[in-house]
Amino acid sequence: MAKARVITPQEVDFPRWYQDVLTKAELAENGPVRGTMVIRPYGYGIWERMQAEVDLRIKAAGAGNAYFPLLIPEELLRKEAEHVEGFTPELAVVTHAGGRDLEEPVVVRPTSETIINSYFSRWIQSYRDLPLLVNQWANVVRWELRPRIFLRTTEFLWQEGHTAHATEDEARAYALQILHEVYRQFMVDVLAIPVIAGIKTPRERFAGAVNTASCEAMMRDSKALQMGTSHELGQNFARAFNITYLDDTGAEQYAWQTSWGASTRMVGGLIMCHGDDAGLRLPPSIAPTQVVVMLVRDQDGAGEVARKLVNQLESAGHRVRLDDRVEQSFGRRAVDSELKGVPLRIEVGPRDLAEGRVTIVRRDTLTKLPTPVGEAGTVATTTLDKMHSSLLAEATEFRDARIHDVSTLGEVGEATAAGWARLPYDIVGEDGETSLAESAITIRCLTRPDGTCPETVDEEGLIAYAARAY
Amino acid sequence: MAKARVITPQEVDFPRWYQDVLTKAELAENGPVRGTMVIRPYGYGIWERMQAEVDLRIKAAGAGNAYFPLLIPEELLRKEAEHVEGFTPELAVVTHAGGRDLEEPVVVRPTSETIINSYFSRWIQSYRDLPLLVNQWANVVRWELRPRIFLRTTEFLWQEGHTAHATEDEARAYALQILHEVYRQFMVDVLAIPVIAGIKTPRERFAGAVNTASCEAMMRDSKALQMGTSHELGQNFARAFNITYLDDTGAEQYAWQTSWGASTRMVGGLIMCHGDDAGLRLPPSIAPTQVVVMLVRDQDGAGEVARKLVNQLESAGHRVRLDDRVEQSFGRRAVDSELKGVPLRIEVGPRDLAEGRVTIVRRDTLTKLPTPVGEAGTVATTTLDKMHSSLLAEATEFRDARIHDVSTLGEVGEATAAGWARLPYDIVGEDGETSLAESAITIRCLTRPDGTCPETVDEEGLIAYAARAY
Repeated sequence: MAKARVITPQEVDFPRWYQDVLTKAELAENGPVRGTMVIRPYGYGIWERMQAEVDLRIKAAGAGNAYFPLLIPEELLRKEAEHVEGFTPELAVVTHAGGRDLEEPVVVRPTSETIINSYFSRWIQSYRDLPLLVNQWANVVRWELRPRIFLRTTEFLWQEGHTAHATEDEARAYALQILHEVYRQFMVDVLAIPVIAGIKTPRERFAGAVNTASCEAMMRDSKALQMGTSHELGQNFARAFNITYLDDTGAEQYAWQTSWGASTRMVGGLIMCHGDDAGLRLPPSIAPTQVVVMLVRDQDGAGEVARKLVNQLESAGHRVRLDDRVEQSFGRRAVDSELKGVPLRIEVGPRDLAEGRVTIVRRDTLTKLPTPVGEAGTVATTTLDKMHSSLLAEATEFRDARIHDVSTLGEVGEATAAGWARLPYDIVGEDGETSLAESAITIRCLTRPDGTCPETVDEEGLIAYAARAY
Repeated sequence: MAKARVITPQEVDFPRWYQDVLTKAELAENGPVRGTMVIRPYGYGIWERMQAEVDLRIKAAGAGNAYFPLLIPEELLRKEAEHVEGFTPELAVVTHAGGRDLEEPVVVRPTSETIINSYFSRWIQSYRDLPLLVNQWANVVRWELRPRIFLRTTEFLWQEGHTAHATEDEARAYALQILHEVYRQFMVDVLAIPVIAGIKTPRERFAGAVNTASCEAMMRDSKALQMGTSHELGQNFARAFNITYLDDTGAEQYAWQTSWGASTRMVGGLIMCHGDDAGLRLPPSIAPTQVVVMLVRDQDGAGEVARKLVNQLESAGHRVRLDDRVEQSFGRRAVDSELKGVPLRIEVGPRDLAEGRVTIVRRDTLTKLPTPVGEAGTVATTTLDKMHSSLLAEATEFRDARIHDVSTLGEVGEATAAGWARLPYDIVGEDGETSLAESAITIRCLTRPDGTCPETVDEEGLIAYAARAY
């Protein structure tokens, strides 16, 4: 029996495939205000696990969570010139509140550098107050002209870290520590997404930063997605907000700062990096449900076996769901578990059981593994263990096969039609970057020739990755 | 040596005491936009633990987290008449965004019934889709004329649950399940705050609800604080948003609904229920740090003993902080740990150690317990275990001594000058409630004579609690 297609194949129309997955897997949908989104419970379950894993790593890096107000006086935003210039076109402004017009309009935060730094300037007095390492989980609003769910939305959820340090070296090192130990490690170890960690060209820098580093991933349509960024702010905000400290000689110094963020956009990246024509494919460590035990028919003790298996798998520490909705079509339930990317499905039915077996179906390969009932728990555990590295290897292979080394600017267009171009940064130059931008191609990031992340764009011999991007 | 007073005593000026604790314990401060607040890392650490504990109980009650947009079209808000009337005076309105004036202004959510129910109407088709149980952790904005940090702020953080059910009985039972199994249980078992769970009079109901239940706690100035509410919405929103389902006979029915919320206001309640003239007193289960091991001087192996003790306590599952800032005054560090309400302080110094001892200081009683080094871990654990019930008993005794039974309306004023009045609801009546309101006295909630929470205000013989409230 051929399965009816429930979603558009990726090859046919990737954006429609993405939209179909969002809808059919009940991940998210459009909000009533243009560009906003509703994150449905299944999508939010994925985000919650992302939050928990990222938060753990942020705390390990020494930062504590805090919360700053959503509403920022316009005057505060104007204090850092480049910053306000970068964000003004995207601002949402509250002009009326509590039944009357406000004397001074307030903006809904597009990011929180300005409000947080106005407090840092009060909290920081001496070198003993440094480093100050603060993170916040929050919603931000940036008015989007071309919104797309999870990838570019008028409101999104994120964490934004903000830190102040006594020296430039320390701030630079911390920005890179966050890039590597929080973002890259999380993306590789939890999301199974291979990322290239590099720094941005001056053109692509965050408004107000002296250096922006990012993690870039390739989606299955070969476009790039910026998955998280970490900025070195130098003393730009410290000067604008007067964040000074007395050093151990009693001299007054401006602090050196960083800021860094990762958002619900990562959910979009997860979908587009691993998804296939059957829907989502979730690595076990991020999946809200790791194993669904699916009762085919409640007959000949099958229900009992299914429930026992659920208990056994839960005791082994897995997140398990029992699907005993036998009144609904088995085929539809199976398709639904595939759409939702549940890593393992264990089908428990009387026919298999008569032969002492259940069927384990891997979501990543869609292979069916008939397994003796008594071994199902162990096989599930070892299969889940393998699945992460298998998804990571597949995504790495997919990406590496689509990164084309080129040696002239002229070749970049063709190379980025279905992949990324890699070329010496010297060849690109500022003019080259401008002309690529006319074809919607951007330099995603710069690395050293050995693939490591440079400290500044001034290092010699950097390599540029050029791509079309979300 | 008499300690210098670091905060205003409660007896002298309770509001100043509260403000002093907020500042000196580095919990929170005012934001730049009137009525908003900055929650500092220590204050946010308390909120994070509240979130985790409440979230656990919400999930156990079957609700899943989701996220709906911050910005709501004005038109949506207008759909439920009582609701819009209740919230209009407090709305913040975005009229300008993305560089131009909006055709239709959007409001910043004051609560999310309207936007969530507009999605429920799409998601619910048949009785099989019910119950639909959704929760969201979010910020909301209500323009406040008399703001006070944590208690009443223009922006606050909360969870708001929204559910739809097939029958009135089921909705009513679920609203009460949330009240008891999520809110009351959390407040008593985690915050050590005794609460009275009852229902509101029609005057005090949530705008758009048919019944509001709440948990009310007494603060140490004897005023009442509403700590969390659970509403039965009847079919009001279902009719306004056309939330219908086909029942098992194929007939179309309106759904029955609930909504319920608890917010950062609980942090204020925690401070004011347990705090004393030395600052915060945190029950161990909510304390970000349960034990601070404080090195007096790093001499004669004291540092080594302190570090070992930290490891031992961490292995026992406690949240422990080592304070080895020996270059700072010991007295100041001790005062700081008391201000912050850390349940236990273990002082490790060479003088005590010479006699084989450390000193354990309980924050709740401020008693000092010289303890043999080898027993310090065990004593700490048993003391922490006792501290929760001890704080709960103290707060219960404090409250019960200040609840005065009265039998006429005329006595309520005196009884509520330094406590609450308890009287038959029949005696109050609608007019009585209005006249009490003129003296800023409100009926906090109604219970049955045996103290249990009634299902509706129409039950006979209900008891009213009258008080001044935050």
